[in-house]
Amino acid sequence: MNAPTPIAQFAPDIRQRAVPAELIAGLQSRFGAQCSTAQAVRDQHGRDESAFTVPPPSAVVFAQNTQDVADAVKLAAAHRVPVIPFGVGSSLEGHLLAVQGGISIDVSRMNQVLAVQAEDLTVTVQPGVTRMAVNAAVKSEGLFFPIDPGADASIGGMAATRASGTNAVRYGTMRENVLALEVVTASGEIIRTGTRAKKSSAGYDLTRLMVGSEGTLGVITEVTLKLYPLPEAISAATCSFPTIEAAVRCVIQTIQLGVPIARCELIDAGTVRMVNAHSKLGLREEHMLLMEFHGSPASVKEQAETVQEIATEFDGQSFEWATTPEERTRLWTARHNAYFAAIQSKPGCRAISTDTCVPISKLADCLLDSVAEADASGLPYFLVGHVGDGNFHFGYLIDPDNTEERRIAEALNHQLVTRALALEGTCTGEHGVGLHKMDFLLTEAGTGAVDMMRTIKRALDPDNILNPGKIFTL
Amino acid sequence: MNAPTPIAQFAPDIRQRAVPAELIAGLQSRFGAQCSTAQAVRDQHGRDESAFTVPPPSAVVFAQNTQDVADAVKLAAAHRVPVIPFGVGSSLEGHLLAVQGGISIDVSRMNQVLAVQAEDLTVTVQPGVTRMAVNAAVKSEGLFFPIDPGADASIGGMAATRASGTNAVRYGTMRENVLALEVVTASGEIIRTGTRAKKSSAGYDLTRLMVGSEGTLGVITEVTLKLYPLPEAISAATCSFPTIEAAVRCVIQTIQLGVPIARCELIDAGTVRMVNAHSKLGLREEHMLLMEFHGSPASVKEQAETVQEIATEFDGQSFEWATTPEERTRLWTARHNAYFAAIQSKPGCRAISTDTCVPISKLADCLLDSVAEADASGLPYFLVGHVGDGNFHFGYLIDPDNTEERRIAEALNHQLVTRALALEGTCTGEHGVGLHKMDFLLTEAGTGAVDMMRTIKRALDPDNILNPGKIFTL
Repeated sequence: MNAPTPIAQFAPDIRQRAVPAELIAGLQSRFGAQCSTAQAVRDQHGRDESAFTVPPPSAVVFAQNTQDVADAVKLAAAHRVPVIPFGVGSSLEGHLLAVQGGISIDVSRMNQVLAVQAEDLTVTVQPGVTRMAVNAAVKSEGLFFPIDPGADASIGGMAATRASGTNAVRYGTMRENVLALEVVTASGEIIRTGTRAKKSSAGYDLTRLMVGSEGTLGVITEVTLKLYPLPEAISAATCSFPTIEAAVRCVIQTIQLGVPIARCELIDAGTVRMVNAHSKLGLREEHMLLMEFHGSPASVKEQAETVQEIATEFDGQSFEWATTPEERTRLWTARHNAYFAAIQSKPGCRAISTDTCVPISKLADCLLDSVAEADASGLPYFLVGHVGDGNFHFGYLIDPDNTEERRIAEALNHQLVTRALALEGTCTGEHGVGLHKMDFLLTEAGTGAVDMMRTIKRALDPDNILNPGKIFTL
Repeated sequence: MNAPTPIAQFAPDIRQRAVPAELIAGLQSRFGAQCSTAQAVRDQHGRDESAFTVPPPSAVVFAQNTQDVADAVKLAAAHRVPVIPFGVGSSLEGHLLAVQGGISIDVSRMNQVLAVQAEDLTVTVQPGVTRMAVNAAVKSEGLFFPIDPGADASIGGMAATRASGTNAVRYGTMRENVLALEVVTASGEIIRTGTRAKKSSAGYDLTRLMVGSEGTLGVITEVTLKLYPLPEAISAATCSFPTIEAAVRCVIQTIQLGVPIARCELIDAGTVRMVNAHSKLGLREEHMLLMEFHGSPASVKEQAETVQEIATEFDGQSFEWATTPEERTRLWTARHNAYFAAIQSKPGCRAISTDTCVPISKLADCLLDSVAEADASGLPYFLVGHVGDGNFHFGYLIDPDNTEERRIAEALNHQLVTRALALEGTCTGEHGVGLHKMDFLLTEAGTGAVDMMRTIKRALDPDNILNPGKIFTL
């Protein structure tokens, strides 16, 4: 553990750089109707799912191909103006906010699935393709792409934040599932990282340096992903527990036994109520694990029996099975909508989301005290978690104009992160650092490691034009 | 594909830098008997399993802890003298050779297993611990560490080269199995990358930048690894095929069906003969797949049945099972000794090893033409492969003093790599670039990507003291 993070109410450090009229004219000349300075378009690209308010970018370029991205970056680079890549806008950490001004490069029109290489279990897509679109494109080949953050995020954005989601416990995260990238560098050069080979020792792992770099080292313009055969059998079940602790202990034992469970999600009773209200489900309003098993019919049966035995030890109710694909879809859609269900439970609110992830043996230590603190605070919250990975999210529901609520939420977040770091965990399992976790990153990684990140950033982006002001200060 | 690699007989670019007597005196003063300048010690640290001859380092420091490494690096840095980390010396690509002079930092005495965190399926070790020592330390907890390059390599060296081996088809490589590192930087600072959390989006992925950086970005002084529960059931089998093509087609179909096979190795008939002679085995001297299945008894049975059906389609002989742990160990030891068996088949020879890896659908295209070329060349060779990953190794057995044999081997290697890159593969699946594949890396990754690697190297090691002359020229 390094020096503790100072407790402070978070406000973004806004230092708008000038965007010369000459640059806007140059963009308009090169891109015509693909470049917009309309206020509504700028506003739409100047916010995300974070709780911060920042002035919007000066212009939005709708890139249609890699050359568009390269040309936009080159024009911006000539004026040392920031560029911020934009996918679908589902960041929770302010990644898309123009804290230093600049232009937004919207890649949502780069939405082509370029090649499904079914025989190699890979697919190559443009960055604006969403995870659901990937799955729609490969389903007929009997394949699927498992990474599923709640939102139907863009693959470019998911790569940039090293996203994961409910299936990561079995299939890994974007770290493990991106094979290769095409990237536009700070000077507007187009490079490729990686090949379609499953493994390689060919030089520095630029692919994984870019994955999780939050747009600060390059703009991702193409992504090659790993795919998986659709499991022969899939079973999903819910199981209720008398306490959160009982549910968590069941998870810990399941993971420690090496059961290859495909999904293992916690939803606390309060959040189940919100989900029921939002998604018209009749889930039992108790603390609950949502689980899914993938494999051959025999293997799925075996896994389910093992976990049922463990659940019984911890006073779990009997499993309720979602056996048809429609029931499963309904259940997981409800899980993915927990965030929106919570937001709607308090009109006008914003969520301050936590994202700690700890070694599985520390999960109960990390989670239970934080639940007690959240309960004591009086703030409404939701609690969901990819608990099989030791990762969970509180969403503290605040009125964005209420300073006191924001202070309480930040203090809860701070206590939770401090606890997670002391337990050898991380401040962010899957959302990224963005604007909000820069101090936490420094505490977690230490000055030496963050200085190494800064040195890499300065070397690869000497004018600091690639999504500046995120991950760390320069 | 980028500009083709020039065909040239490879000779290392040796540019010895001066090592001032003052530095040697400083090392001797700080390290006493832990610093040796004895010729035999220097010679031992001046070679590896590659086929190159280079003058040895000027001194060897036997580090006993991280501070020793940091102090040695600081002393060398003050004189801008290269430092080369040394584990057990099993590199195949000249990683350990002092092509620019300097000192060797031997970490083999840093051989402590620091903590087995069985409940989290992780272990933290010093870099000199070998893979077999890791397994010995965790076996009583019912756990194992799957990554197994043939040699009993050090964990530090395996991390530095992004090693893998026979289990990678199921368990991944060092890329997927290193959770966190402690690293001494070019200035002698000690940093930590990563935590024990299973996943994280906390800033740049310095862990994976270091993994595979071949000692050029830092000296690894501590490694936290993922572990796996020992499978409830393990079965190993051999199966002979009438042609290499039949064996390879069987593998391709097995992988494409998503069978979670744990090991899937090809050995050609000639290499089986060498292995039989060396390890006193009575394997049928035909082209052969060695396979292993891990899981519950039911799952292992299911996997084996599926693969047997596929093998029958391709005229495979019936499986011969190695059912007891002793038989399995004997079989895999023989596989791991294939390299040494081959070396001993031609007294005085050295092997020039290839290491291409291609997408699984391209495996037959890549392998079969290369076999024909090798046969036509008249050079003896061995052929083994982690074919489930699309990775295989020819070892062309040459008399190191015979210029013509070396020329032929380099030409074969060149043809093979050119073919693999055209098939969207990589020049090195697991051995690393080292001295020998620098031109291939440039062809594979392109000037832009290699320039990005160079920029990172220059930023993190401005005096180019960390294992200089490897991966790329500066």
